Amino acid sequence: MAILDSIDCPADVRRVQAADLPALAQEVRERILATVSKNGGHLAPSLGAVEIAIALARVFDPPKDKVVWDVGHQAYAWKLLTGRREAFPTLRRHGGLSGFCNPAESPCDPFVSGHAGVAIAAAEGMAAARDRAGTDEHVVAVVGDASMSNGISFEALNNCTTLTSKLVIVLNDNEMSISRNVGAFSRYLGRLISGFRYNRVKAAAERAGHKLRLGFLSRFYHFVGRVLKSLLLKNTLFVNFGLRYIGPVDGNDIAAVEEALAVAKECARPVVVHLVTVKGKGYGPAERNPTAWHGVGPFDLATGEPLRAPDGGKGWSEVFGDALCEIAREDPRVCALTAAMKCGTGLKRFAAEFPDRFFDVGICEEHLVAFAAGLASNGMKPVVAVYSTFLQRSVDNIAHDVALAGLPVVFAVDRAGIVGADGKTHHGLYDIPMLKCVPGLRIVQPKDGPDLVAALREAMASGGPAVVRYPRGRCPASVEPLSDPSAKVQLWALGDQVEKANRAAEMLRAAGVPAGVVHARSVKPFDAGLLARQRAAGALVATLENGAVSGGFGESVGADLRFGWPDSQIPHGTTAELEGDFGFTAEAVAAAVKAAAERKVAK
Amino acid sequence: MAILDSIDCPADVRRVQAADLPALAQEVRERILATVSKNGGHLAPSLGAVEIAIALARVFDPPKDKVVWDVGHQAYAWKLLTGRREAFPTLRRHGGLSGFCNPAESPCDPFVSGHAGVAIAAAEGMAAARDRAGTDEHVVAVVGDASMSNGISFEALNNCTTLTSKLVIVLNDNEMSISRNVGAFSRYLGRLISGFRYNRVKAAAERAGHKLRLGFLSRFYHFVGRVLKSLLLKNTLFVNFGLRYIGPVDGNDIAAVEEALAVAKECARPVVVHLVTVKGKGYGPAERNPTAWHGVGPFDLATGEPLRAPDGGKGWSEVFGDALCEIAREDPRVCALTAAMKCGTGLKRFAAEFPDRFFDVGICEEHLVAFAAGLASNGMKPVVAVYSTFLQRSVDNIAHDVALAGLPVVFAVDRAGIVGADGKTHHGLYDIPMLKCVPGLRIVQPKDGPDLVAALREAMASGGPAVVRYPRGRCPASVEPLSDPSAKVQLWALGDQVEKANRAAEMLRAAGVPAGVVHARSVKPFDAGLLARQRAAGALVATLENGAVSGGFGESVGADLRFGWPDSQIPHGTTAELEGDFGFTAEAVAAAVKAAAERKVAK
Repeated sequence: MAILDSIDCPADVRRVQAADLPALAQEVRERILATVSKNGGHLAPSLGAVEIAIALARVFDPPKDKVVWDVGHQAYAWKLLTGRREAFPTLRRHGGLSGFCNPAESPCDPFVSGHAGVAIAAAEGMAAARDRAGTDEHVVAVVGDASMSNGISFEALNNCTTLTSKLVIVLNDNEMSISRNVGAFSRYLGRLISGFRYNRVKAAAERAGHKLRLGFLSRFYHFVGRVLKSLLLKNTLFVNFGLRYIGPVDGNDIAAVEEALAVAKECARPVVVHLVTVKGKGYGPAERNPTAWHGVGPFDLATGEPLRAPDGGKGWSEVFGDALCEIAREDPRVCALTAAMKCGTGLKRFAAEFPDRFFDVGICEEHLVAFAAGLASNGMKPVVAVYSTFLQRSVDNIAHDVALAGLPVVFAVDRAGIVGADGKTHHGLYDIPMLKCVPGLRIVQPKDGPDLVAALREAMASGGPAVVRYPRGRCPASVEPLSDPSAKVQLWALGDQVEKANRAAEMLRAAGVPAGVVHARSVKPFDAGLLARQRAAGALVATLENGAVSGGFGESVGADLRFGWPDSQIPHGTTAELEGDFGFTAEAVAAAVKAAAERKVAK
Repeated sequence: MAILDSIDCPADVRRVQAADLPALAQEVRERILATVSKNGGHLAPSLGAVEIAIALARVFDPPKDKVVWDVGHQAYAWKLLTGRREAFPTLRRHGGLSGFCNPAESPCDPFVSGHAGVAIAAAEGMAAARDRAGTDEHVVAVVGDASMSNGISFEALNNCTTLTSKLVIVLNDNEMSISRNVGAFSRYLGRLISGFRYNRVKAAAERAGHKLRLGFLSRFYHFVGRVLKSLLLKNTLFVNFGLRYIGPVDGNDIAAVEEALAVAKECARPVVVHLVTVKGKGYGPAERNPTAWHGVGPFDLATGEPLRAPDGGKGWSEVFGDALCEIAREDPRVCALTAAMKCGTGLKRFAAEFPDRFFDVGICEEHLVAFAAGLASNGMKPVVAVYSTFLQRSVDNIAHDVALAGLPVVFAVDRAGIVGADGKTHHGLYDIPMLKCVPGLRIVQPKDGPDLVAALREAMASGGPAVVRYPRGRCPASVEPLSDPSAKVQLWALGDQVEKANRAAEMLRAAGVPAGVVHARSVKPFDAGLLARQRAAGALVATLENGAVSGGFGESVGADLRFGWPDSQIPHGTTAELEGDFGFTAEAVAAAVKAAAERKVAK
């Protein structure tokens, strides 16, 4: 029987003999690989953090002690060790475990995770609450190096010693964000890692100091310690924030991690434990190419080859990326920006072709937009490619930095709508409601590939701020709305919903209800003329949009029926599964519209 | 004739004899005091930055060179020196100059300012655009120490050397944000300031190095330089980001600032110029109490006493603060949070009475909310008091960190609606549209003092996330809607709009149109029962809300007429002036409703 199969809670991890721990780590990796190779998921980050999860479970006492994983996509091992082993094969499947941390799943997940950079702030809140309640639980934040360079992490570091007496910050440094890291902080960490020498010197000095414990000598040792520290240009950044610093330590060596965490646990003030891990550890293909293996679909374990054959069609991201390359060839002022999502947003080709006009700022969505505003204010034509869910971080910068001055920044809002397996933390449902109120901002959603290219060109030609939104997945080569100007039922479909509206219209027609489909396209400005004429002619108007109904397109045009995602949390699952759950299939739309049309006639 | 009166552009500043500069600074201060004592404004920050503005105009060549003032409320001297001298008496008045930087006012303001922390990011964008265009303008960001600890500043520092070859960051360090500064970074700057010693040593070493210029000796000097730097624990933080650091320099000494800026201008890589200034400089009362004099109403120049007698009534902020103190006395889990707005949000008394349960995190609205989520997840009952306009920074944290887990965090959203003289960067018009889409979030706006207390208590008792929004200004002791359940015109007024709706209803009644007023109160969840019954009875429904109509309350209930703020930029002015401009007075509402009611009858 595998060791892992005897582990139902962190206390069981503590009972494992030290000699058996490498075997346990190996079993955890195999279990992660077995599930992710079937379900897809964030493989490389989770493989790298196996030893950290084991050591955390052994040194701390969760759920009493609180372990907050930033982002949470590296916490698969944590799930396996904290009572979710049997459910693990359901990972990221409809009705199954979430791909991120989720308090609803386990008390060992004290905080929802999914968006990067909040773990330290949240952990500070827990620690401050503990300090005030007088309880004694430990609080640990586990943060990747890429998340550490997010502004919220900095704000939290800056407030750390003021807000709490005691906190353990585990810096899981794999020298990667989703792609290779950018920025000065990352280079700084690289310098820290390069100097193990310093730690040996410091350890020796500390041993000497602890042995002697004489007043003057102790003070002298402290002075020497500070000089040495500074001389070697080490850990001053964290020390500047009033934090203690332990490391760097090999984060894939359980004994070393346990030792470092045990020291940190006893530390009477906030402390950073700097662990260096290998992203993708233990699976050759992932170690060799951690960027490609950051998040993957189902794959063949033996070969590393994807199981799903490419469907031949281009995705929306790729159509966008190709179009932007074409536009950039025509105009040297066009540039592209991303926040650590070069591949996901389809900018890989742009980055290769126009390295000087491609900017990856790291996981910094606020800076991303403020920087784009600066570029635009000095003559460039920036296009910001960003997932809808992460754009929520930039709402103020869009309203304040970009829109108030009417700057020509174009937002290519990818993953707008249901994203599937990543679930509730990642669905892109709120960009229309959150941005519709910003004066002067155009919002358009194209219906197919050529329309995306046209919409992007129009946005860039508009000379002002503009959003072009499009969903995850395959981009149809051509879709035409089944229009019927005289029909008494009109389905206004936004962008990717035209296909579904067409199917619903066909069902309605088959059921004897003449129905037409209109591609809404522009949420803002919205040309109300056609809609007003349809209304004046007595038509029933229904809207379909891949976004929240509350505050969405249907609400702003005052549709009689508004189809989209309801005002509740949408879990993970395929689009088809979720559309079924929430009554947003073509069948459900057709049925609801038919009933409403019949009620209207009856009146 | 005053020197200032000969200055129409920065080139004129450069023509002033060095010996006359102190006199010019004095004139600028007098001009600022003359206007702010009449119009109100951000006095202490602007008085502290007079010498910086003069030196910037002399060392750089705006508008060709771009000077980006962070926040912009310290840029009054800049306005006086860049062609806005004659218009200056209109500062913050309806139709007059903005209290912040505004490209529409002058080419010397290259960027809209108002919200803290974006100047470095924006300046990096301008510098990156310049690098790519091959032009040679200089770009300067002027950032207060409080803004520097905002996450966006950090994100920008982190990306600085990657994104641009050359940039001057002026750190205007007055050791204050709006209130006294918090956080480790602020303490760090304090340590920097305390050690002028180091700079003398470094200057000597540099002089020696420049003189010798011998290979080995030069390298030795560089080594010694780094050792000295580290030994004295100085400027390592900026150096860690790859930036050069100059300072600290007396920022109220024009010659010293000019010298430092001249060095920075020639620097071939991004550089931080650390200037130490006195907030409120040159006006005794403001120097003695810079917090109270950060932003002021009209006052008597001689005595410093406010000109407007208090009107006897409490403001909404004060009613909130008093209520929260009462609630906190009953429950030790209640705590209050602010982002550098202790006084503005009415928390001064709370902070004094419950210092251990009061958290000021500095200008860090994202961290503010993530930290509150952490507090709530570990048993506290946090109340986040924040201005509506700044809450835009936290939208993702509200949706992701708080609402997904249903955490009991209450947002006391102050300045919700028109804020008056601060204008377009500060109006609180978007909180309803941006937050209405967040599942599980309650949004309530009370109508008067007792209702605010009740709404706050309800929000805290709800056990989930909740927003209580209220406007700037005086809080009425009691307002009752003029209800008339049978009237064919129903005015649904949200919160502070009940008074205006009552007046409109009286006008309608006087004009023979029976009208009733309903206090809408809860935007979400909205109990649609009464509204549905009114509609079924054929009533015309109009909504009034102090917020954007696009995505607002009126849109979500599908009102026939929706009064509020239109989808365009709302400038500064008094509420009465702006309501007049945008057709949102009781008279305008009554007239529009009457016309619509007549059209309805005619149909």
